[in-house]
Amino acid sequence: MTHRPGRHFLQLPGPTNVPDRILRAIDRATIDHRGSEFGELGSECLQGLQSVFQTQNPVIIYPSSATGAWEAALVNTLNAGDRVLAFETGYFAGLWAKMATNLGLRVDLIPGDWRHGVDAARVAEALARDREHEIKAVMVVHNETSTGVTTNIPAVRRAIDEAKHPALLLVDTVSSLGSIDYRHDEWGVDVAIGGSQKGMMLPPGLAFNAISARAIEASKSSALPKSYWRWSEMLANNSNGFFPYTPATNLLYGLREAIHMLEAEGWPRVFARHAQLAEATRCAVRQWNLEMVALDPSEYSNVVTALFVPEGFDEKALRALILDRFNMSLGAGLGKLAGRAFRIGHLGDFNELMLAGTLAGVEMGLALAGIPHRKGGVDAALQYLTGQA
Amino acid sequence: MTHRPGRHFLQLPGPTNVPDRILRAIDRATIDHRGSEFGELGSECLQGLQSVFQTQNPVIIYPSSATGAWEAALVNTLNAGDRVLAFETGYFAGLWAKMATNLGLRVDLIPGDWRHGVDAARVAEALARDREHEIKAVMVVHNETSTGVTTNIPAVRRAIDEAKHPALLLVDTVSSLGSIDYRHDEWGVDVAIGGSQKGMMLPPGLAFNAISARAIEASKSSALPKSYWRWSEMLANNSNGFFPYTPATNLLYGLREAIHMLEAEGWPRVFARHAQLAEATRCAVRQWNLEMVALDPSEYSNVVTALFVPEGFDEKALRALILDRFNMSLGAGLGKLAGRAFRIGHLGDFNELMLAGTLAGVEMGLALAGIPHRKGGVDAALQYLTGQA
Amino acid sequence: MTHRPGRHFLQLPGPTNVPDRILRAIDRATIDHRGSEFGELGSECLQGLQSVFQTQNPVIIYPSSATGAWEAALVNTLNAGDRVLAFETGYFAGLWAKMATNLGLRVDLIPGDWRHGVDAARVAEALARDREHEIKAVMVVHNETSTGVTTNIPAVRRAIDEAKHPALLLVDTVSSLGSIDYRHDEWGVDVAIGGSQKGMMLPPGLAFNAISARAIEASKSSALPKSYWRWSEMLANNSNGFFPYTPATNLLYGLREAIHMLEAEGWPRVFARHAQLAEATRCAVRQWNLEMVALDPSEYSNVVTALFVPEGFDEKALRALILDRFNMSLGAGLGKLAGRAFRIGHLGDFNELMLAGTLAGVEMGLALAGIPHRKGGVDAALQYLTGQA
Amino acid sequence: MTHRPGRHFLQLPGPTNVPDRILRAIDRATIDHRGSEFGELGSECLQGLQSVFQTQNPVIIYPSSATGAWEAALVNTLNAGDRVLAFETGYFAGLWAKMATNLGLRVDLIPGDWRHGVDAARVAEALARDREHEIKAVMVVHNETSTGVTTNIPAVRRAIDEAKHPALLLVDTVSSLGSIDYRHDEWGVDVAIGGSQKGMMLPPGLAFNAISARAIEASKSSALPKSYWRWSEMLANNSNGFFPYTPATNLLYGLREAIHMLEAEGWPRVFARHAQLAEATRCAVRQWNLEMVALDPSEYSNVVTALFVPEGFDEKALRALILDRFNMSLGAGLGKLAGRAFRIGHLGDFNELMLAGTLAGVEMGLALAGIPHRKGGVDAALQYLTGQA
Repeated sequence: MTHRPGRHFLQLPGPTNVPDRILRAIDRATIDHRGSEFGELGSECLQGLQSVFQTQNPVIIYPSSATGAWEAALVNTLNAGDRVLAFETGYFAGLWAKMATNLGLRVDLIPGDWRHGVDAARVAEALARDREHEIKAVMVVHNETSTGVTTNIPAVRRAIDEAKHPALLLVDTVSSLGSIDYRHDEWGVDVAIGGSQKGMMLPPGLAFNAISARAIEASKSSALPKSYWRWSEMLANNSNGFFPYTPATNLLYGLREAIHMLEAEGWPRVFARHAQLAEATRCAVRQWNLEMVALDPSEYSNVVTALFVPEGFDEKALRALILDRFNMSLGAGLGKLAGRAFRIGHLGDFNELMLAGTLAGVEMGLALAGIPHRKGGVDAALQYLTGQA
Repeated sequence: MTHRPGRHFLQLPGPTNVPDRILRAIDRATIDHRGSEFGELGSECLQGLQSVFQTQNPVIIYPSSATGAWEAALVNTLNAGDRVLAFETGYFAGLWAKMATNLGLRVDLIPGDWRHGVDAARVAEALARDREHEIKAVMVVHNETSTGVTTNIPAVRRAIDEAKHPALLLVDTVSSLGSIDYRHDEWGVDVAIGGSQKGMMLPPGLAFNAISARAIEASKSSALPKSYWRWSEMLANNSNGFFPYTPATNLLYGLREAIHMLEAEGWPRVFARHAQLAEATRCAVRQWNLEMVALDPSEYSNVVTALFVPEGFDEKALRALILDRFNMSLGAGLGKLAGRAFRIGHLGDFNELMLAGTLAGVEMGLALAGIPHRKGGVDAALQYLTGQA
Repeated sequence: MTHRPGRHFLQLPGPTNVPDRILRAIDRATIDHRGSEFGELGSECLQGLQSVFQTQNPVIIYPSSATGAWEAALVNTLNAGDRVLAFETGYFAGLWAKMATNLGLRVDLIPGDWRHGVDAARVAEALARDREHEIKAVMVVHNETSTGVTTNIPAVRRAIDEAKHPALLLVDTVSSLGSIDYRHDEWGVDVAIGGSQKGMMLPPGLAFNAISARAIEASKSSALPKSYWRWSEMLANNSNGFFPYTPATNLLYGLREAIHMLEAEGWPRVFARHAQLAEATRCAVRQWNLEMVALDPSEYSNVVTALFVPEGFDEKALRALILDRFNMSLGAGLGKLAGRAFRIGHLGDFNELMLAGTLAGVEMGLALAGIPHRKGGVDAALQYLTGQA
Repeated sequence: MTHRPGRHFLQLPGPTNVPDRILRAIDRATIDHRGSEFGELGSECLQGLQSVFQTQNPVIIYPSSATGAWEAALVNTLNAGDRVLAFETGYFAGLWAKMATNLGLRVDLIPGDWRHGVDAARVAEALARDREHEIKAVMVVHNETSTGVTTNIPAVRRAIDEAKHPALLLVDTVSSLGSIDYRHDEWGVDVAIGGSQKGMMLPPGLAFNAISARAIEASKSSALPKSYWRWSEMLANNSNGFFPYTPATNLLYGLREAIHMLEAEGWPRVFARHAQLAEATRCAVRQWNLEMVALDPSEYSNVVTALFVPEGFDEKALRALILDRFNMSLGAGLGKLAGRAFRIGHLGDFNELMLAGTLAGVEMGLALAGIPHRKGGVDAALQYLTGQA
């Protein structure tokens, strides 16, 4: 292992910097997953996640990546050949849609420019056209990790309701959960998909489904083949904190610690912190005079900011230089943004000085890479953070 | 958390006692799963697992429980309605067969008494009857964790070969891998299923598929819906150590450390150690005059020993007493053995003195529970271990 | 690092097996030792140690080995040329007396056979002879770590009191503290010396002085040169949890955790546990028919048992064999016991099954080394532990 | 424990940010300090420290704070009533001189303004006056941690040599060791004092003496009372990696890891990194238009920068605000600088982005505290770091 002095800045939009308290919680002897000590752990995690998702309904925990929870959302609620409505808001939205196709669903993919969230008017139109109610689910990504663009979920919900359409609302909250306000019950979402390695500050390896009563109802008539992802056995076992198959015990230790930490800070403060650090990031971006991928300020993400590099420059080279010189990992441009845009993650266990270091790394990288920009980005962020912007 | 003084003895047949070196390896900052440092980690793990499975063919790593790798073995190689041959050798063999049914396969389940492994003669018979070659796969559990009974995999392979039957051979090595000799290529297995939390000494959360060229070939015509478990994208990404979706990075740190530790000890010594500690356990059992679930000495498991409690006693009560008084977790009786048999795990990072403590806990538990037995079991084990038995 | 499979059994009479909770507590970022968070840590440790020593008077914490706290006890209370009364009860008592000589004190060393504690009658005689009260301190080791022999401290105190002699009573509690009942105030001890790596279950690196009002008084007229060990500045700074020079912060994290753990178990249970495990050890020793160093049952140590190997055998060879074959470290014979006696540590974070493993390692070692003994030692211990001896 | 989100910035001039690799190395089971595995550890540490101090002569390791190693340097080489020459270059130089007085030495303390290092001309004068060679030692602090001022050690050495004076040269390298080039043998230092918690990146709890042949010679006729600090027994035991009393084993694990890390980076690079980050700090300070305590650029410290706050402001309040708002600890003003100057530590495991965060915290703190300053300090540092200043 090469030694780079000082702390690595892991400024991806996930995995995020895992705080020591969580790493140390994970570094504990594994226990019997059928014993009473485990039952308490499991119950604490399951109940804690209800407060994270702001739901009274059950939350499912999978030992898997968040990708698995995407699959779980689909295979538990749908049937072969069902139509689903999806939106090309970015790389991950596209992957999820492709997965739906792989699983035998028919996907109506509404094209998009990767710079906007889902337009509720388009939802309304699509559902209005669907007189036969063939569309069984609407798939929306709350925070598109590849672009730094959010979607207004309540607006999508209203569109569905106003269309009086019975489609389920499935929402990917992978990179918003724990960082941006997400209200499962209030917003009427049927299945939400979450993961451990973003706002929840854990290593990857756990994924979640928050579900509604309607989703559970739908699962009873869903005939897509499934076993690992099947909710029914999960729910039966979860009632006293256990799982139908061996859970990822050590990551659950970390999840319990994460929930304690977030609750100690208090959700309003957690969300306000992310909002403030994101706005400070954008202050730097404006000063640099670089172009953000997100176009609509009402859709700016509070967890990740994606930036174009000017024509003639390659974001890969910039990121490689920053990693080599300043020991910081930034998010790659994904899909059609590869080479053209990079991403600054500013979520999870993050604070003002970590942000200052992050922005300094970007600004020095721009300078060394010879990318045209206006200096003073870090300065602009600091002015904002001290209320002088 | 209640404080019980001294070290907990986690004598399940998995999860096993995770050594400190592995816990500490996991307790490291998560890194960028798309960066070059990760590529080295991924490659080391993937190549290391080839030596663990004794194969030249690829091994797949899932962020999941081993249950997921069961599913992966089926959905990658089979098609809806395919017939598969399974054997009721114990609780886990039964669960796997049930999963196959859930996934839309037709299962020919050969009944068994849970006290023997798979009889190769029955395999031969079943395949001989299948003139049309409708049976597409034979599902066998190498070491049945619920009973402490192993199956002779080469004998099963021979039966298939002698029947000139094209069925794939799928083998569950979850509780044998890393503790009992398993030779993927030499034995001609098509898909093996493994997990992290047994002989590999890790917390739960990783699962493996070792595959053959024939299995890969079969996967090309398999149409069962799948996405998370799909081998093809895994294999494409794995070539340089990466994964198609976010891997469980911190558990991979542990996996790399585990592979280093096992290779430093040397496989022949690892297997010999498990064999010796298992035989010492059986010496104690014979002295206690308790009945083992396994009936055939050639099928005794070197990783777990399942024991009946005499009529009128409940294994649950015995285990609860031992946990409460001696801070040791033993394996429960599962399925039809619930209440009737308990299991002593003696695998993973385990040595003579840990075994002595384990057997002492059982022997003291038997005494305090008033279960009729002959004293001197620990003594018998020690005599064996010092070559005086 | 060679890899020996399974857990190492560290059965020295210290350092002892450090529980994971304490190691993990130590594995935390160092904080500002002049900040308020540190003040709370320091105060918790200082107050917690008062309950450990059973005193209302202050306890001093040094970043040092316990050897340093020996020195501190002497240099804070005495003057050059002062006479002190010491007892040759074993190796460590001898080292402490030698230190006193090194520091310019005149030591009256009462010879002993290393198989008995301090005889209060000899204390009485020596003090009675000292009409001029030249003897300024009586130095006694509570639990002699090299022999497994304890001294009756209240009896020594009574002897001093009955002699109406003003000498201070200095007591080494290094290997008794936290494992054997020690009552600083009730027993009228003036300075007690403790360390972190025995019953307190920490790594080495912290040492303690519990002091009395008389000791503080004596320190005011003590002119031995000192700076690092000087109580006065410590006491001044300790009042709000701080220290006059940089403390060993991370070990203090561990100390706080250790105090929490011991208090959660409850002192009476802690002492009873050590008493029971020690008696179980002696049951094994009797069965083996080996000779203990300690001769008087009323002086048997509950933390360490020292055993002679028969003439013609070498304890070094036995311990080397046990380490090599069974991954267990036992205590060496020290000083004149080198080669002749070894020591089994049974203190700290220790329980029945760890003891069973420990005794099994000794018994197997005896067998393999060809040392004459009666088998069944482990068995005898188990019978005792289940109330059947 | 209050939860402050994000990483704490521990920007004291020690303890410094302990890297995870070192914390994890410390978080390992304690081993037998008399066994062969320990011997290897001890030898690696002792030899590694020779390269750290750039000496062929032995280095002593104490389980203590660095304050103890100050004492060791004095009590091993001197005799009661010896005259020593000391310089009031700052708070710690003063404490060391006071310690010498406490230990019975006669201290010639050359006054100073706390803004300059030792002037070699004053050394020459003082020694020239000492015709009788009563002065036995010259005590110099290499890097005065309280002021951020270094002393030119080779110049002091030359002054002693030119005076043909036999006094020993004792040098405190506590805050320079491992961060600023220090050459024990080449510079002809007799005793150097070091500690673990600064450039060596460890928690506090280990202290060092690097010694010369002349120092060892002097120790033979030194009669100051000593035991814990006595070199002779240390040297005798150290020859094969052992210690005369229980060492702080777990901190030694960390020391070995620290040495590996520093050697992997390479000493020239380590020193250059500290020099560059220090100059970047000074660029920020100049831009802020704040006054540094150090007056002579040739004496600027590369590990700590001390800054005055303007009249009418209190550094305590500034630091409290920065801790509360930005989760960063800065160094307090010590002694006569209390309230007037604060200190920025920029040493140990530190890099550009950590520095940017640190400077951002100071700059935001200045703004929020209403302390007059010129903005753009972080910016100036970044320009310097990218070679554009």
